[in-house]
Amino acid sequence: MSAVAAGGATLGKPPRRPRGRPPGSVAGQGAATRERIIETAVELFAARGFHGTSVADIGARADVQPGALYYHIRSKHELLWEILRRYTEHALDGAESITTADLDAVDKLRRLIGFHVGIIAEHRREVAIQVRDGGALTGTRAAELQILRDKVQDCWQRVLDDGHRAGRFRSADRAVVNGLLGMVNMLYLWYRPENGDTVESIADQFCAMALDGLIR
Amino acid sequence: MSAVAAGGATLGKPPRRPRGRPPGSVAGQGAATRERIIETAVELFAARGFHGTSVADIGARADVQPGALYYHIRSKHELLWEILRRYTEHALDGAESITTADLDAVDKLRRLIGFHVGIIAEHRREVAIQVRDGGALTGTRAAELQILRDKVQDCWQRVLDDGHRAGRFRSADRAVVNGLLGMVNMLYLWYRPENGDTVESIADQFCAMALDGLIR
Repeated sequence: MSAVAAGGATLGKPPRRPRGRPPGSVAGQGAATRERIIETAVELFAARGFHGTSVADIGARADVQPGALYYHIRSKHELLWEILRRYTEHALDGAESITTADLDAVDKLRRLIGFHVGIIAEHRREVAIQVRDGGALTGTRAAELQILRDKVQDCWQRVLDDGHRAGRFRSADRAVVNGLLGMVNMLYLWYRPENGDTVESIADQFCAMALDGLIR
Repeated sequence: MSAVAAGGATLGKPPRRPRGRPPGSVAGQGAATRERIIETAVELFAARGFHGTSVADIGARADVQPGALYYHIRSKHELLWEILRRYTEHALDGAESITTADLDAVDKLRRLIGFHVGIIAEHRREVAIQVRDGGALTGTRAAELQILRDKVQDCWQRVLDDGHRAGRFRSADRAVVNGLLGMVNMLYLWYRPENGDTVESIADQFCAMALDGLIR
């Protein structure tokens, strides 16, 4: 896990400018500060774990005064939830648009694999946080996140079911859907762009194995 | 993660009798106590996390007096290492015997998948501990464990390489090996024998997808 955190952790990323707000306005600055806090939390949670990171650590690294910090965020748990919700909503948006597209089930599965490889490669710090510290969320937040994750899985299941019904796939078993998601999700542990890994080449390898099989 | 821990946690398992020692001897009792401590640690680490479990918690649940506890184990970290080392050695023993067997590469891969599905299903608490808290190990212990895990992966890579060289497999890419291991390892999150999941049916689904492909 440490290699992932080290590989993913970078310092000094510029905060994203909030959409629709002119830069420099008070509201725009507030949103920019909040973004910087969230980005810093991703970095620290991935590197040191949720429990090993304090709100004060995040404030110091994000260069936000302790007194101002709680104006922007309510708690460390809210930060964790925000990080995991955003990433999961991003995954869901893509999966839903592929699932509802006017495409053959085989093409949909190819696109789901390709899109999801990209999501995991881009968000491997968030995946590491989810896997290690997702259990720190409880109650409504945990339930909401689980609903989002279930919806992502439902997209994959629907594509498999449709393809199976149409005679395109041999199986739409729950084990196949979970196996495909496991194959792609675990990428967060071994993806190394610095060693030449690319989203495209990995997606190609996964598609070839899952759709056509390894046997020549 | 909590569902896994809850599903895997059981109380009151009888301690395994140490091999080659007569039951009831002082040494035999000592080994039995150590086994009970380790089994209790698996249970508590899986349910509450490594950092959420104290040595005192383990002693109380394993019914070992605080004064006697440190006679049997040196530290909580030693327990974590022992748990992860045992499970990984078990995985490696099986993978090596399949890899060196006198079999066709395709049969070897089928057996690797089947054996590893069984290992993960049996040890899903250990896998959950590894994924969540493996990073708590450092130095020599972390390095030794990484060597064992690399050896497991090398077995899979060797089978793929041999099959690729012999023209049996389309690819022996590192992404394929990691994809196969991800497919099987993530089983710890969703395997539910109480809902009818069996090692055999899951292994069959995985083998059919990975070897023959989903496309009919």
